[in-house]
Amino acid sequence: MKDLIPQLKKIVAPGQVLTEKEDLIPYGFDGTAAMKEPALCVVFPGDVSELAAVVKLAAETGTPLVTRGSGTGLSGGSVPVKNGVVVCLVRLNRILEVDARNLTLTAECGAITKDVADEAEKAGLFYPPDPGSMKISTIGGNVAENSGGLRGLKYGVTRNYVMGLEVVLPNGDICRYGNKCVKDVAGYSMKDLFIGSEGTLGIVTRVLLRLLPKPPARRTMLASFSSMEAAAATVSAIIEARVIPCTLEFLDRVTVRCVEEYAGIGLPLDAEAILLMETDGHPAVVEEEAERMTAIARDNGATDVKVAADEEEGLRLATARRAAFSALARMRPTTILEDVTVPRSELTKMVRRIQEVGERYDLTIGTFGHMGDGNLHPTILTDERNREEMERVEKAMHEMFDYAIELGGTITGEHGVGLAKKAFLAAQFSENSYALMKTLKHTLDPRGILNPGKIFD
Amino acid sequence: MKDLIPQLKKIVAPGQVLTEKEDLIPYGFDGTAAMKEPALCVVFPGDVSELAAVVKLAAETGTPLVTRGSGTGLSGGSVPVKNGVVVCLVRLNRILEVDARNLTLTAECGAITKDVADEAEKAGLFYPPDPGSMKISTIGGNVAENSGGLRGLKYGVTRNYVMGLEVVLPNGDICRYGNKCVKDVAGYSMKDLFIGSEGTLGIVTRVLLRLLPKPPARRTMLASFSSMEAAAATVSAIIEARVIPCTLEFLDRVTVRCVEEYAGIGLPLDAEAILLMETDGHPAVVEEEAERMTAIARDNGATDVKVAADEEEGLRLATARRAAFSALARMRPTTILEDVTVPRSELTKMVRRIQEVGERYDLTIGTFGHMGDGNLHPTILTDERNREEMERVEKAMHEMFDYAIELGGTITGEHGVGLAKKAFLAAQFSENSYALMKTLKHTLDPRGILNPGKIFD
Repeated sequence: MKDLIPQLKKIVAPGQVLTEKEDLIPYGFDGTAAMKEPALCVVFPGDVSELAAVVKLAAETGTPLVTRGSGTGLSGGSVPVKNGVVVCLVRLNRILEVDARNLTLTAECGAITKDVADEAEKAGLFYPPDPGSMKISTIGGNVAENSGGLRGLKYGVTRNYVMGLEVVLPNGDICRYGNKCVKDVAGYSMKDLFIGSEGTLGIVTRVLLRLLPKPPARRTMLASFSSMEAAAATVSAIIEARVIPCTLEFLDRVTVRCVEEYAGIGLPLDAEAILLMETDGHPAVVEEEAERMTAIARDNGATDVKVAADEEEGLRLATARRAAFSALARMRPTTILEDVTVPRSELTKMVRRIQEVGERYDLTIGTFGHMGDGNLHPTILTDERNREEMERVEKAMHEMFDYAIELGGTITGEHGVGLAKKAFLAAQFSENSYALMKTLKHTLDPRGILNPGKIFD
Repeated sequence: MKDLIPQLKKIVAPGQVLTEKEDLIPYGFDGTAAMKEPALCVVFPGDVSELAAVVKLAAETGTPLVTRGSGTGLSGGSVPVKNGVVVCLVRLNRILEVDARNLTLTAECGAITKDVADEAEKAGLFYPPDPGSMKISTIGGNVAENSGGLRGLKYGVTRNYVMGLEVVLPNGDICRYGNKCVKDVAGYSMKDLFIGSEGTLGIVTRVLLRLLPKPPARRTMLASFSSMEAAAATVSAIIEARVIPCTLEFLDRVTVRCVEEYAGIGLPLDAEAILLMETDGHPAVVEEEAERMTAIARDNGATDVKVAADEEEGLRLATARRAAFSALARMRPTTILEDVTVPRSELTKMVRRIQEVGERYDLTIGTFGHMGDGNLHPTILTDERNREEMERVEKAMHEMFDYAIELGGTITGEHGVGLAKKAFLAAQFSENSYALMKTLKHTLDPRGILNPGKIFD
């Protein structure tokens, strides 16, 4: 163990191992509130064979490894473990190919999500998953967390766009699964096991992504409501009318006020809830769906529906939604962003319960999220130094998770389990179902090298 | 072992264990040519707890189990293993719920695929996967094989529509994964491990399926070509024009002639290839895409493009494609339906090679398939009693598989590995990648109870 660092330095290029205390600080936490742990060191492999050598060394020495991209995770998945090495993969950041004939893109894990989307767009193509942090998140991190985004309703999540993976196993072996075929049933779907496994089963080093033709038109609308229930009813009514827009996002009163103060885009401050609605596709479809959604919103009590005049105004409205987390985070020292998700039919119940829980525990909760997906982000504004308040936060979170599960939902729709949710995971599964997941972890990583203590104890 | 049958009879209702030789015959093979093995007995559990009891008994006695639905599989996946029990799940055939608010359908594994699609349609909804055998195949079999179909290009395959599963593990435990949430990242995606695992990791007993709104319009076209290359070029050009139709199916000259003789629908007998093209969605989009596809086909040398006047005529044209396998199967005693798949950009090369291989080995090969998916079904018409010819068949198949892999393709796009392809599977993977799949099998099923000898030895 004591000569681990010299050995790591032999594997990677000079300067690619950080060991000084002050250098390690930024790698001691990710986007999750109230979670940090100093790393023993941070290593930056330059390619997959260096990474494999690092993993082999870790396996031989029993050293825990925590993989990290840009550190934007929201469940503590890339927070270091005690005496563990952080493997930061930002150097593997090349976009290797856009194949317009097969509608695919190949990238290294450290490529920035937005760069992937931009490269696709240059070829007239479209990479739909757009997690909130896409300007800085890495595609490998997206795959490890199976990230969602604002377009999940129509386009699905990261998993739906991964055709192939290169992955380094906990023993340092390099495996490759998938190809450019749109159909392939040869063997088990191993890539699906690694997608969303949060760095606990293998380290994703390269991804082959499926692209779509870029939708030729888009229309953005913003509806205001005097109650959250009316916004939720609008979402249900749109789906029941067989319209599947690309985006149905909402912000509650608390969030609207924070965003407006932060970004000043002219949001209606008197609204109890606003709904950002976006449709894309063929111009005729966009036209028709925009009209239908506007009418449905009005029928369900929208006090105002604003249709963006052009792409630019639409982008500005969408930016309001994207700014929600940052805007809320400015209000109090600690921002706990939750991720409960329920079947769409249960949205109104869940939203009401979140409000009620917030009031009962005297907490400030701003709620926003992907209403069309039933994916809510109740965001608790608190102060981790205030122990008494944090106890109330814990209780409130617990009640929200329990209720989500009771409604047939999940404790996490897109942020992952990591450290933040692992205490709650078992409640969502039967004993057998939970045990089998642990069995898989133990099979692939018997020494517990990769991201130990995440997802499970 | 010798009192296994009495014990099975105690688990299920009277008459639900078949043991007489003549009763066992229909369960000794599936849709795959030249593969049969008599079962020890066939048992028909009436519900999941009876099934779990059967599996527990098998685990205790080390009895191999082969799960079977309607037996339409095309890779020998449900062919019995020596001294094994066939578990036939056709009694678990209820469609339990269509949830129009959440766009889901819940069914038992033995429900017929077409019944699932019909139930969805009654609610104005749409279950897209449509494997060729959907009139008789079971939904559980579709999940076990991750079945494709004629709409894969636009809509994907069975996996893309499975939101949740109930599954009986090789030790008899019952597990449940997934829910009605459109986003869920709590724990590993266990359902994805079971989908396409061909009954080797667990027995799927219940499925929760995602539905879509039913596309309001549809248009079917039939283009004739004087060369297969022209048909393949048309497919490439359509995708490059950023049109993703729901169906791009082709039939070669041999198949066209067989189908016409069989069904008499007025197919052009002088064509070297025909392309069945279908677009669905909003009427304006359908109109526009139909025009563009017609123009592209003409630009790429189509000698004729026939647009179906109405839904009924469209259905008749689609029926021609669906009849391909049955029509070819009438020609010679043995029909070997292959399933090689390549990236779309490599279609022309693959099609040419299949023709060339057929000529070189003096075999009659009718080729049809899902050209838009790169998924080809070269169908060898032969006679399994003719050993010399079968040797040539083996060699031809081997060459086709090798070439598909060389082109970045797969040995099976939608039929599975089963018995038929297991000798070729390793060639598609690196040693590590292949070994990990075997490790998973061994972990979940250490005694090799479930469908032993399928996928791997």
